[in-house]
Amino acid sequence: MKKYTIAIHGGAGAIPKIIPEDQKKLYFAALEKILKYGENLLKKGKPALRVVELVVNKFEDCPLFNCGKGSVFTFAGDHSMDASIMDGRNRECGAVTGIKRIQYPISLAKDVMTTSKYVFLNGKGAEEFAKELGYKFKNQKYFFTEKRYEQWKRVQGSDSTSLDHNAEFAAAPKGTVGAVALDIHGDLAAATSTGGMTNKKWDRIGDSPIIGAGTFADNSTCAVSSTGEGEEFIKNVVAFEVHALLKYKNVSLKEATDEVIFKILKKGIGGLIAVDKIGNFALPYNTLGMYRGVATSKGVFEVKIWE
Amino acid sequence: MKKYTIAIHGGAGAIPKIIPEDQKKLYFAALEKILKYGENLLKKGKPALRVVELVVNKFEDCPLFNCGKGSVFTFAGDHSMDASIMDGRNRECGAVTGIKRIQYPISLAKDVMTTSKYVFLNGKGAEEFAKELGYKFKNQKYFFTEKRYEQWKRVQGSDSTSLDHNAEFAAAPKGTVGAVALDIHGDLAAATSTGGMTNKKWDRIGDSPIIGAGTFADNSTCAVSSTGEGEEFIKNVVAFEVHALLKYKNVSLKEATDEVIFKILKKGIGGLIAVDKIGNFALPYNTLGMYRGVATSKGVFEVKIWE
Repeated sequence: MKKYTIAIHGGAGAIPKIIPEDQKKLYFAALEKILKYGENLLKKGKPALRVVELVVNKFEDCPLFNCGKGSVFTFAGDHSMDASIMDGRNRECGAVTGIKRIQYPISLAKDVMTTSKYVFLNGKGAEEFAKELGYKFKNQKYFFTEKRYEQWKRVQGSDSTSLDHNAEFAAAPKGTVGAVALDIHGDLAAATSTGGMTNKKWDRIGDSPIIGAGTFADNSTCAVSSTGEGEEFIKNVVAFEVHALLKYKNVSLKEATDEVIFKILKKGIGGLIAVDKIGNFALPYNTLGMYRGVATSKGVFEVKIWE
Repeated sequence: MKKYTIAIHGGAGAIPKIIPEDQKKLYFAALEKILKYGENLLKKGKPALRVVELVVNKFEDCPLFNCGKGSVFTFAGDHSMDASIMDGRNRECGAVTGIKRIQYPISLAKDVMTTSKYVFLNGKGAEEFAKELGYKFKNQKYFFTEKRYEQWKRVQGSDSTSLDHNAEFAAAPKGTVGAVALDIHGDLAAATSTGGMTNKKWDRIGDSPIIGAGTFADNSTCAVSSTGEGEEFIKNVVAFEVHALLKYKNVSLKEATDEVIFKILKKGIGGLIAVDKIGNFALPYNTLGMYRGVATSKGVFEVKIWE
C-alpha cells in the first residue's frame, strides 16, 4: 500500500475539560467521521488538494465548528468567512475574505486558484466572481445557529471578542478548521476555513486567508494549517516559518513545529497541523486544547481535544 | 555619525527606456526629493518606523506613483488602496485593504497596528475604524488624475489588466511604493502602499497588505518591501523568504535577495528593496526597470529607474 497521511483541526483555544459528556461525544464523533472520510478519499488515490477541500467542506457543513454553517457572529450581527488553500506541487493557491453568502468558502478559494488569474479576492468582489461561476447563494439565515447566536448575545455591543467561562460555551470552537494531507502520489496540500472571531469589528481579517500565515504547502517540505489568535500568526508568518525551518535548518517536522508553537509564539495563542513530504505529522498547540485528528497508512487513527 | 540606510521604490515593471525626457526628469526629481526627505529624517534621529510612514506619505501625495492620490482605476472605475507597515523591533504590524476614501492608507495601517488589537482591517470596516479615530475622508474625486483615467479608458470593460506599449503610458508606475530603513538607533522598519492593479476585478487583493509577502521587518535580519505581480509574491511569501534566508542560511543580503528575485521568482515578475541590520542594502528586480533610490550614512545617494 502506498503511503498517505491526513491531519485535521477544528480550532484551538481555552477548551475546558469539564465540557458536558454528551457534548464531548458530539465533537469526537464529528472529528472521527470527518477524519475517516478524508482517509478513505486518500486510500482511493484522490489527490491531496481535492481531499483537503472536501474534508474542509464537511467541517463547513457541521454546525459544531466555526466555519461555513457554524460560523460565529460578527460585531454587526452577521457572518463573515475567510478561507485559503494551497497546492504543494506548484505553490498555486487561492484565498477569499469577507464571504457572507457562500456555503463552502474553501471551494470558492480553490476556484479563485484554478479559474482566475488572481490569488486573493475580497468580499463582494469574491461573491461576484462566485456568481459568474454559477454559485448558488445562501442567505444569512442559513448561517444562523442558536448556539452561536447565544454566544454572540453574551458579548454583543461590548468590545470583548472572547467568551465567559461557562464550560459549554467555552468549548464551542471559536478558531478555524483545517486539513493537510500527503496523498499516495507524494503530493501535499493544505486548506483552512473560518467564520472568524465572535464579535469581531471593523471587518478584521485574521490569518486564515493569508498564505504563509494560516496556510502553506510545498512538496519539497510540508503542508501546514494554523489556528488560534490570527494576529500573532500573521506577525510570525507561522505556516511559512515551518517550511523555512525544514528547508534551511534541516530539522525534523516535530522540531520545526515545536520551535514555532512553543518558542516563537507565546503560550495560549494557538496551534497548527502539519504533514511533511514523507508522511510525518505534528499537531502541536500551546492552548488548553485543540480539536484535532490524524490518520496514516501505517494504521494511526487518532482524534483528540486535549493531551 | 551614527549609521543609517534608507531605500525606496516606486514600482517595478516593463518600463521602456524611451520615456519622453521631460517625464523621465519628473520621476527622477520626485524620487530624489522623497529620498532626501527620508534621509534627513534619519539624520535627525527619527525612528525607522516613523520615517518609512512619512516617506510613503510623500509617495501617496505624488500623482506620479500608483498609491494614494495617484492610484489607478479598478474595473468598476473607482480606486481601492492597500497598505501595510511593520516594526522590526517587535514584529508589530498593521495592514489595510480596499481603502477608498483615505488620503494616507499607510498611516491608517500604522494606526491599526498601534491603536487596535487587530493587524489587518478590510474596506468599509477599516474606514469605520478610521472614522472613530477622527480621520477626514476624501471623496473619490480627490483620487482622480487625468493620466490614470486615460490609462483606464484604454482597457476599460476588457479583461486586460495591462497597458499598451505607448511609452508614456507604459512608464506610468503601476506597481506599489515602499520604503525600508535602518535608523541610527539600530532599528528596522518597512512600509508598502499601493493603488492596486489597473482594471482589477472582483476586489482582488495583491501582496502589498500581506505581511510576509509585500512587507516584513525584523531587527534580527532585515526590512523588505516588495513590488510587482502580487500573486507571485504571495505564493512565494517573498519578504519573509528574504528574512528566512538571512536567518537560517546565513547568507548576505545580496545573496538572499538575488536568490528570491532571480531564482525563486520568474523573470518579469517584479523586485524588492531591502536593508539589513548593519545597513547593507539591495534593490534587485527582474523586470525592465524599477523606480528606486537608496541613501546611507556612508554617503551613498542614488536614484535609478534602469540598470
